[in-house]
Amino acid sequence: MTEMAVPRGFRGITKNMGLKDVGDDFAAVVSEVPARSAAVFTKSRFAGPSVILSRESAATGHCRGMVVLSRNANVATGRTGAAHAVEVRRRVAEIAGVAPEEVVIGSTGVIGRPYPMESIRANLDALTWPFPEADYERAATAIMTTDTHPKTCHVRVGDAVLVGIAKGVGMIEPNMATMLAFFFTDADIDGDELDAAFRRVVDRTFNALSIDTDTSTSDTAAIFANGLAGPVDTAAFEQALYDCALHLVRDIASDGEGASKLIEVRVTGARDDAQAKLVGKSVVNSPLVKTAVHGCDPNWGRIAMAIGKLEDETDIVPENVRILFDDLPMHPEEPSDALLERAAKYLGADEVVINVDLGIAEGAFTVYGCDLTEGYVRINADYTT
Amino acid sequence: MTEMAVPRGFRGITKNMGLKDVGDDFAAVVSEVPARSAAVFTKSRFAGPSVILSRESAATGHCRGMVVLSRNANVATGRTGAAHAVEVRRRVAEIAGVAPEEVVIGSTGVIGRPYPMESIRANLDALTWPFPEADYERAATAIMTTDTHPKTCHVRVGDAVLVGIAKGVGMIEPNMATMLAFFFTDADIDGDELDAAFRRVVDRTFNALSIDTDTSTSDTAAIFANGLAGPVDTAAFEQALYDCALHLVRDIASDGEGASKLIEVRVTGARDDAQAKLVGKSVVNSPLVKTAVHGCDPNWGRIAMAIGKLEDETDIVPENVRILFDDLPMHPEEPSDALLERAAKYLGADEVVINVDLGIAEGAFTVYGCDLTEGYVRINADYTT
Repeated sequence: MTEMAVPRGFRGITKNMGLKDVGDDFAAVVSEVPARSAAVFTKSRFAGPSVILSRESAATGHCRGMVVLSRNANVATGRTGAAHAVEVRRRVAEIAGVAPEEVVIGSTGVIGRPYPMESIRANLDALTWPFPEADYERAATAIMTTDTHPKTCHVRVGDAVLVGIAKGVGMIEPNMATMLAFFFTDADIDGDELDAAFRRVVDRTFNALSIDTDTSTSDTAAIFANGLAGPVDTAAFEQALYDCALHLVRDIASDGEGASKLIEVRVTGARDDAQAKLVGKSVVNSPLVKTAVHGCDPNWGRIAMAIGKLEDETDIVPENVRILFDDLPMHPEEPSDALLERAAKYLGADEVVINVDLGIAEGAFTVYGCDLTEGYVRINADYTT
Repeated sequence: MTEMAVPRGFRGITKNMGLKDVGDDFAAVVSEVPARSAAVFTKSRFAGPSVILSRESAATGHCRGMVVLSRNANVATGRTGAAHAVEVRRRVAEIAGVAPEEVVIGSTGVIGRPYPMESIRANLDALTWPFPEADYERAATAIMTTDTHPKTCHVRVGDAVLVGIAKGVGMIEPNMATMLAFFFTDADIDGDELDAAFRRVVDRTFNALSIDTDTSTSDTAAIFANGLAGPVDTAAFEQALYDCALHLVRDIASDGEGASKLIEVRVTGARDDAQAKLVGKSVVNSPLVKTAVHGCDPNWGRIAMAIGKLEDETDIVPENVRILFDDLPMHPEEPSDALLERAAKYLGADEVVINVDLGIAEGAFTVYGCDLTEGYVRINADYTT
């Protein structure tokens, strides 16, 4: 990543501030010049103070960048936790010489524990501006919790560059945004267009992802555009943003806690896109489908079950529903043993595509997830409070 | 069970008819005399022909008993499967000398495979009426799939006896009824009262159970009352039915695929009972809560997360929500390390109670589930198509 082109004018720093035993747990990336921004957040009723503060920042549409503390979500920590979030955001803004409302703050990790503020304060006091040129690989590493590798993506759009970083491998069924995902670009984009494009892209990428049906209290996705590279074609920009976000989503799904493979469920022939998404989520979230894929068992009956349990979708007629593993037809064809054997072999791949056609109309949606393994149970039975 | 009192007038038979490699896979229990009945079924869009046929039977309110084939759900098997279900129900009715509509047929097991009808026909032809007095332990054993033990319950109500049998340890989040549960009684109860009592009881027991969020295509619960013991107090009968159903539900949850413990989530202080149920289900279904309980990790933050993800429940205010393991307060008290240690020890029990009070009004509901273990993944990655 460090050798690749990066967007102009973003400065960043990563540090260990005493939250993780080893490695960076603090990352800040801020534009030197004013920027436009768009952001979406968790809808959780237990949203943490970082999310609540960042919603205020994001409402301005003029955030320059972000600060993230990992390993501790600072959620359900009462008034003390709220004061800590305000303090961290204010100190980072002071150091960078910007207003607090120009900074998005993100938190991720354990719920219900206060920040180690003494250590954080001492470390913040030692920071000086300007930070070095932002190192996105290091920033992506600093925001990791149970991720096994940092997740970054970068693309060129005209003269501009777009970089995305993300984290999150558990407690993931974002509803509005994923755990933490940040995009930085030097493209010059109108604020309203940026916001609209960002929401459209998030809906088809982060909101199409589910690892374990559990929606985090800390989900945050934001984009910062400082305009230093001049105007770009907006359609090309949205496509680049989509590609970048999808890359991160697929990376998150593949790296899902304990996951051994990515599952992509492509639903077509639905009443509308919303129904296609509902069906896709039901299939990709079914623990019986996820374990069958893990065991390379072409048990398409479990896919039928996962569709069937959507009892309110009365226009779904079992006889008209087609189910395929990749291009291998399972229902209603009553597959031969030879075909089942081919399907079992196909399920051994790193990426598995399940195709479902509902035979109703033209609605379509693709969702992303992963298999359910003994590793998921191990990680989450052992992850310390 | 065999030494205990049983309801008068029910005759039963179990057999191996070639679906399981070993052990009985066929059970029929039928009243000698006419009976009243009530029944509820899965709402799955992929409901199998057995469910569809049994809905017709149940509509009469005069079913005498049931026939069940296990190991094969006869679901998504097309017209052939539908014809097979009709044939099995008709043959059993003929043998018992009753109308086909007096028999409920239940199926459970793999989806998408036809019945081995040659073997089933030969075995049915060998049956003669009257069957011996019903042996409920054997019937409960015959209907098992991945269950580790048969599930039965019996209680006295006045001069009458009520017996219940059930099966099901996976693909369990019944919405209307559980996998398979049958109740037999010689109490004389008015048909409408029987139906109303049965639905109320099912809603607070089987519909309060979730092992893995997956709703089966075959869920069936039915009660048969032949009146031979004369009238009983209806309130006492409903209480007995509730006790019996709850016993079976707790047994199913404890025996959940791979489960090492029962989880009971008691929600109080809700806007209404429906909200309490919604919150309870969200907690008991969260894979992160389930794995934390499995790992004896008092990670109450995951319970907060599971409540918080119900974004539409805008009257839930985090500060007013109380979360306890049994009587050990976790939120909003910010528990001491000593208390967390006690909670960790408590989570080592076979049955874990999570108490949630929403602090809104008087709505209450209790739901039942189990922990998520590596065993669940193993069983379901290996279970053959």
